[in-house]
Amino acid sequence: MRFTSEQRLDDGVLEREFTLGEIPGILWTPGSVSAPAPLILLGHPGGLHRMYPRLVARARHSAAEGFAAATLELPGSGDRPRSAAAEEARADLRRALAAGEPVDDEIVDRLVLPLVEKAVPEWRAALDALLSLPEIGGPVGYSGGVIAIGIRLAVVEPRISAALLFAGSYVPRRMFEEARQVTIPLQVLLQWDDEGNDRQMALDLFDAFGAKEKTLHANMGGHTGVPHFEGDDATRFFARHLR
Amino acid sequence: MRFTSEQRLDDGVLEREFTLGEIPGILWTPGSVSAPAPLILLGHPGGLHRMYPRLVARARHSAAEGFAAATLELPGSGDRPRSAAAEEARADLRRALAAGEPVDDEIVDRLVLPLVEKAVPEWRAALDALLSLPEIGGPVGYSGGVIAIGIRLAVVEPRISAALLFAGSYVPRRMFEEARQVTIPLQVLLQWDDEGNDRQMALDLFDAFGAKEKTLHANMGGHTGVPHFEGDDATRFFARHLR
Repeated sequence: MRFTSEQRLDDGVLEREFTLGEIPGILWTPGSVSAPAPLILLGHPGGLHRMYPRLVARARHSAAEGFAAATLELPGSGDRPRSAAAEEARADLRRALAAGEPVDDEIVDRLVLPLVEKAVPEWRAALDALLSLPEIGGPVGYSGGVIAIGIRLAVVEPRISAALLFAGSYVPRRMFEEARQVTIPLQVLLQWDDEGNDRQMALDLFDAFGAKEKTLHANMGGHTGVPHFEGDDATRFFARHLR
Repeated sequence: MRFTSEQRLDDGVLEREFTLGEIPGILWTPGSVSAPAPLILLGHPGGLHRMYPRLVARARHSAAEGFAAATLELPGSGDRPRSAAAEEARADLRRALAAGEPVDDEIVDRLVLPLVEKAVPEWRAALDALLSLPEIGGPVGYSGGVIAIGIRLAVVEPRISAALLFAGSYVPRRMFEEARQVTIPLQVLLQWDDEGNDRQMALDLFDAFGAKEKTLHANMGGHTGVPHFEGDDATRFFARHLR
């Protein structure tokens, strides 16, 4: 991991861009910390520049509670090389949604499974690098989408102690079996009227999670309309589980 | 409304028992208030004595935020005269649940509709009396079950500005039409594995509510296992809407 830029935000949060090999990422650490900070990995749909305003807002929220936050560009997004197969699957998904047709499992598999296979080892490598910094201690939480990435990470990465999963994207049916293996505390965020997602699939997924402590928060407002107060709720969820 | 007893709780909250005609009730007001307090009506399944520990905990939570809280015994519960028809309907419901059978709509109608018809005017009368006290100002929230009572109150009582509804009891199908007329902000609490409720009915009900701002919180733990943190979430919901 190599830091490429550094700036101090007005609330004292230190923002550092880094690269992990060829993969860009951003790390935010609280302005004043007395001990190594717990870390929240901020998931997103891809495109760090486009997502930056929302990511930095979430990072500031976390930093105000004493948590560090970090994120990584997804394979095929932002400045990273595109995958022709993924672009094609995404176009097929959009076509099905626009036509109001049910989304074929095979489209979801083509779109999501390779992404999960590629992204999860990258996030784990980022975790290795981040946890080697003296200012970051752990435990670690995962927050956001892509939910299928969050599920896989929650299953394979024992350093992740709690996850807030945004149920705003399709999950391959074959990953429901993995969902049953997720036993860390979960908070699942669902936009009830998400125009680009399948509500019943999200409810089935919530039901499938093996966690004894799992909470579903459903709100109105469409895919991008998550209410502001969910940011506070997210911070409180992590405060309960990363302290 | 006649006050029958008064005690100061250790956190300064003033607890007063009252009767409204023949109906017993309890009012809690914050220890120190500078202005007339908003009021939260605390719904419950009936039986003030049995429910007292949970009611007083909810009232203390509310008082800590500067809200008064009040509750009223339900028709046919506690020391109030039993309804033979309601007792019979309740026995039929329990029999169906114990046998793992689907619950007939007509059982739900027999159990819930007369309760709603009788209770709602009583709560409205209590509201008249409570809002005439100088220490209580409004706005007013409704919090808890019986959810069918909360729905009817939200539709017919314009002084109620926000409702936190506990989806822990059956709702007559014909009341779904009323649910569509509920437009005040709602937070709906659902126990995902509630042994005495129908999850799909609760999700359909959440979908039916006409409110633009509605949030569903679903948790594990069975009917009585609502997690402690939902108490804080409830208070924050009312702080957003009753201030």
